[in-house]
Amino acid sequence: MSFDVEAVRADFPILSRQVNGKPLVYLDNGASAQKPRVVIDAISRAYEGEYANVHRGLHYLSNLATDNYERVRATIARFLNAPREDEVIFTSGSTEALNMVSYGWAAPRLQAGDEILLSVMEHHANIVPWHFLRERQGVVLNWVEPEPDGSLPAEKVLAAITPRTKMIAVTHMSNVTGTVVDIAAIRAGTDLPLVVDGSQAAVHMRVDLSTLGADFYCITGHKLYGPSGSGAIWIRADRQAQMRPFMGGGDMIRTVGRDVITYADPPLRFEAGTPGIVNQIGLGAALDYMMELGMDNIAAHERALRDYARDRLRSLNWLQIHGDAADKGAIFSMTMEGAHAHDISTILDKKGIAVRAGSHCAMPLMEFMGVTASARASFGMYNTQAEVDALVEGLTFCRELFA
Amino acid sequence: MSFDVEAVRADFPILSRQVNGKPLVYLDNGASAQKPRVVIDAISRAYEGEYANVHRGLHYLSNLATDNYERVRATIARFLNAPREDEVIFTSGSTEALNMVSYGWAAPRLQAGDEILLSVMEHHANIVPWHFLRERQGVVLNWVEPEPDGSLPAEKVLAAITPRTKMIAVTHMSNVTGTVVDIAAIRAGTDLPLVVDGSQAAVHMRVDLSTLGADFYCITGHKLYGPSGSGAIWIRADRQAQMRPFMGGGDMIRTVGRDVITYADPPLRFEAGTPGIVNQIGLGAALDYMMELGMDNIAAHERALRDYARDRLRSLNWLQIHGDAADKGAIFSMTMEGAHAHDISTILDKKGIAVRAGSHCAMPLMEFMGVTASARASFGMYNTQAEVDALVEGLTFCRELFA
Repeated sequence: MSFDVEAVRADFPILSRQVNGKPLVYLDNGASAQKPRVVIDAISRAYEGEYANVHRGLHYLSNLATDNYERVRATIARFLNAPREDEVIFTSGSTEALNMVSYGWAAPRLQAGDEILLSVMEHHANIVPWHFLRERQGVVLNWVEPEPDGSLPAEKVLAAITPRTKMIAVTHMSNVTGTVVDIAAIRAGTDLPLVVDGSQAAVHMRVDLSTLGADFYCITGHKLYGPSGSGAIWIRADRQAQMRPFMGGGDMIRTVGRDVITYADPPLRFEAGTPGIVNQIGLGAALDYMMELGMDNIAAHERALRDYARDRLRSLNWLQIHGDAADKGAIFSMTMEGAHAHDISTILDKKGIAVRAGSHCAMPLMEFMGVTASARASFGMYNTQAEVDALVEGLTFCRELFA
Repeated sequence: MSFDVEAVRADFPILSRQVNGKPLVYLDNGASAQKPRVVIDAISRAYEGEYANVHRGLHYLSNLATDNYERVRATIARFLNAPREDEVIFTSGSTEALNMVSYGWAAPRLQAGDEILLSVMEHHANIVPWHFLRERQGVVLNWVEPEPDGSLPAEKVLAAITPRTKMIAVTHMSNVTGTVVDIAAIRAGTDLPLVVDGSQAAVHMRVDLSTLGADFYCITGHKLYGPSGSGAIWIRADRQAQMRPFMGGGDMIRTVGRDVITYADPPLRFEAGTPGIVNQIGLGAALDYMMELGMDNIAAHERALRDYARDRLRSLNWLQIHGDAADKGAIFSMTMEGAHAHDISTILDKKGIAVRAGSHCAMPLMEFMGVTASARASFGMYNTQAEVDALVEGLTFCRELFA
């Protein structure tokens, strides 16, 4: 199947709107992606005719909603090529997922002085839960820095392991620089528990959990062209068995007495309360849509966009690109002398171009790069070379304004 | 404004569908409520033309989404008559809310031997988070039982307080029996921190947090005719100040370094990561819809339904109603000799009537009532006397089948 970007664009209602009188050029996909019609329709369809609470009902609508919801677990397993469907745990997104690992797996196991090895490139979602363990129980955070070009060689991660290292937390793709980390190469060099933040990577490349070597791998639905409050974490069964429950409530218990409580088997053990039923149904529609297009086709389209954007942006000798590893994703963090990132974003916005400015929830990386803020253009499956041209034109306009 | 139930019904698309060839009689509102057209439309509108991530963007769509999302905080404050808007914290529902209180407020403060006083009527969401503290740090759970009629007099709660009691956790309305607890009367007798689960109550009666006397009060959007994964907890500012963050991630920090972290002010401190943006926007639409109908009108309609249902159900002398306090909500837990609750639910379903069967995430209450399961008919704003008649007819059919 060939990839027709104009056909894809036509599937996303918001892309036909204007912003400030100009056609929308949406380059803020790193923060959150837009939703195709099939996702919006799946949500409406669920609420209009197929809705009830799941799992605990015996009536028709409850069974129907349960089927529609539970089917997404299989969809996610297929999307990630997860070895087992029951290793997929629904979450509201990567933040809940990584806190689940911190509270459920790490907190009861790590002692004062134990180390968590994490990269300076992590998103705050893969930093703050570990800081909690530092603040609360004396765990030590051991940071590994990327190379000047933004890449993070597996050997560098492996070299940072110490006898006190109990866990490695690393992103699969940086949300700031697009750097891709070779998880399999890290796994080849260590048996340590490996927590991988796939929030960006799973959007842009094929993920194969059966060979990747992660112990924990999270995805977040709203970046995957899916709804707010959807997502999942894959946790290998042996790690699940080591975890205590994170949140407590309905559905995750077997029996609740006054003095005794027993828990349901995984994955339900880690899914407390009424879940994000329709959000996950929408995520299923998004993943089906992506798989129908083909992850390799999406990745090839975005590689071409990346190469084109890189060539054009590099030709702007007054623009600095932060992190530009050869095989990175189509994410560009940029600064230009004399213009604050916020000003760049604001001026681009007047031309209908949405980019993000700030620290991108990655302050340690910003500090490493020696900037407090950057303007970030992050591409998705529906972006085009013409939008790269619009970005370059907009940046040139900024340059003329501020130079 | 008068309350026109047929006009309300027309606003809910799902109510015009059939189930098993019969018009849907949806009496499973205690588990989750159906959604009016305005909620479904608000979700579609957001995704079709007004979507981006919130808070961190400077571009048009991000500002628009942020405005639409943050406006819901004010809507929730108005709905609950909360004294301050910044005391409203967005959550994915009551389960996250109550775990936030357990992990963020109670866990760092309660010592082994300290007691949490809770009622036997609590939903598992207001039990399991406290069981965690028992299992993990030796906190003692001290249970207060309802009266045989299902009521829970405030004096009985107050009499159960001991010198070791550090917190009271109680529902505002039982999801099994409909019992309403007089929170203000409990507050009048004690200064102890008071965690109130408003998941059911806020759906059916006017809540006024300025006079109620709670310290913590949670609502859950999916029961409030709103979307999956929406909700909030109101936490009085002085209690917020005593809490440590629950989940860590983006948006809840001020600065993240390698060895130092500082947190954002509340309420953002307790809202880690990309929130359920569109879910909350949908919740805002649901609460606006309820407020336009008028909570007093909704409550009056449901009181009339309750009285009518109670009269009709009481007339079935082979039916046992569990918990039937005079001023309860329109929720009826029922058993009949010779028929398992699951069979009742299954047979009613054949007639298009959706009721729930099981322990309703309230095992301690079921044990107290001496049953393992009940069939529960729980009414909402769109239910009618004709639906009560259908329920009575369906139950009578069950009786004939099993007697």
